[in-house]
Amino acid sequence: MEINYFSLKRTFVCRLREDFDLYDELTKIAIQKNIQLAKISLIGAVKCGKVGYFNQTTKEYQIHTFKKPMEIISCLGNISLKENIPFVHCHIVFSDENGNAFGGHLFSGTKVFACEVFIDEYEGSVERNFDNSTSLFLWEDKCVIK
Amino acid sequence: MEINYFSLKRTFVCRLREDFDLYDELTKIAIQKNIQLAKISLIGAVKCGKVGYFNQTTKEYQIHTFKKPMEIISCLGNISLKENIPFVHCHIVFSDENGNAFGGHLFSGTKVFACEVFIDEYEGSVERNFDNSTSLFLWEDKCVIK
Amino acid sequence: MEINYFSLKRTFVCRLREDFDLYDELTKIAIQKNIQLAKISLIGAVKCGKVGYFNQTTKEYQIHTFKKPMEIISCLGNISLKENIPFVHCHIVFSDENGNAFGGHLFSGTKVFACEVFIDEYEGSVERNFDNSTSLFLWEDKCVIK
Repeated sequence: MEINYFSLKRTFVCRLREDFDLYDELTKIAIQKNIQLAKISLIGAVKCGKVGYFNQTTKEYQIHTFKKPMEIISCLGNISLKENIPFVHCHIVFSDENGNAFGGHLFSGTKVFACEVFIDEYEGSVERNFDNSTSLFLWEDKCVIK
Repeated sequence: MEINYFSLKRTFVCRLREDFDLYDELTKIAIQKNIQLAKISLIGAVKCGKVGYFNQTTKEYQIHTFKKPMEIISCLGNISLKENIPFVHCHIVFSDENGNAFGGHLFSGTKVFACEVFIDEYEGSVERNFDNSTSLFLWEDKCVIK
Repeated sequence: MEINYFSLKRTFVCRLREDFDLYDELTKIAIQKNIQLAKISLIGAVKCGKVGYFNQTTKEYQIHTFKKPMEIISCLGNISLKENIPFVHCHIVFSDENGNAFGGHLFSGTKVFACEVFIDEYEGSVERNFDNSTSLFLWEDKCVIK
């Protein structure tokens, strides 16, 4: 079994400002710092959220919009390259005023109230390519466990 | 765009004992080891849980107490300085006997059944200051993405 | 207070193939690469899921089977040794087509649709031993916070 491994380069520790778009800000960081491979982990709170559920039959995202303030009780993701540009992929879990949990694939449209972010950047890079079977852009072959 | 980055120093790997308070134990570790900047990630199970939902209008935490055993299906957080003392900030996701998920901002009052913790400590430090707009203690300006 | 700490060795970054079993694949990686201490973090989607809730009274896992496609909105875990063999312990959070969140202790029987994995491997090792009080295999004494 061949598996690619990488060395940790540096960890960006940052706070996102109120009213900024969570996904767009992460993307802006990734592009401006040219982060080619990273792991993202963050917590915080939002004023509203927008997530997707990928319908594995129709191959399309079904969108859920939450028009209320919520906690971000988890957000995990990564940065890799898509068409040679740093691309952010995150999944998020929210909790509401009753403590119930919701979530999905993070989309633009999630507005920050407060947000504390760790981005672990690794040496090297990983590229995404279109995968016919899933209709998703997935990590290149060198990362695939066979 | 300026973003602060840090180097990983060491990773504490520990198990918390049954019946100890999750938040208080993490705080005790942070203070006794003088951890000034870290990322926390843990899983486990609890005998009961206490979490908060920050009401962004009243600026107060609404508390949810779960008086039953649950799995910790995620807990992410960080350690930084608040008034120069190591301070723990974690968000937690529980699941119950039906597999349903709940969560929020972790408070004292969450009793450990079993718990496996990773604390990634970084070189350097980050301080929290009171933020007038959110009424929260947020990371200092050097961490803010502008 | 004594706490064991470890140095990061290397980070495996990999993608799991469609239709593979999530837990079994992680275990296969752990064993084939002889990973003795690691932290796992992953996101993705599944075709079905199987998780457990540990009943703290009967000391048995209650199993929940989700026979539908879902997002993996979080999956955190670790690798340590059990009877000297690399052993994977993960907790997972799913979201469904309505954005609702579910989860528990990850079991075999969770079929991958797409999955992006980070495994942070540390120098050193941690062993699990049977714990009489919880009836679980927990990390050895050197990791216990006293």
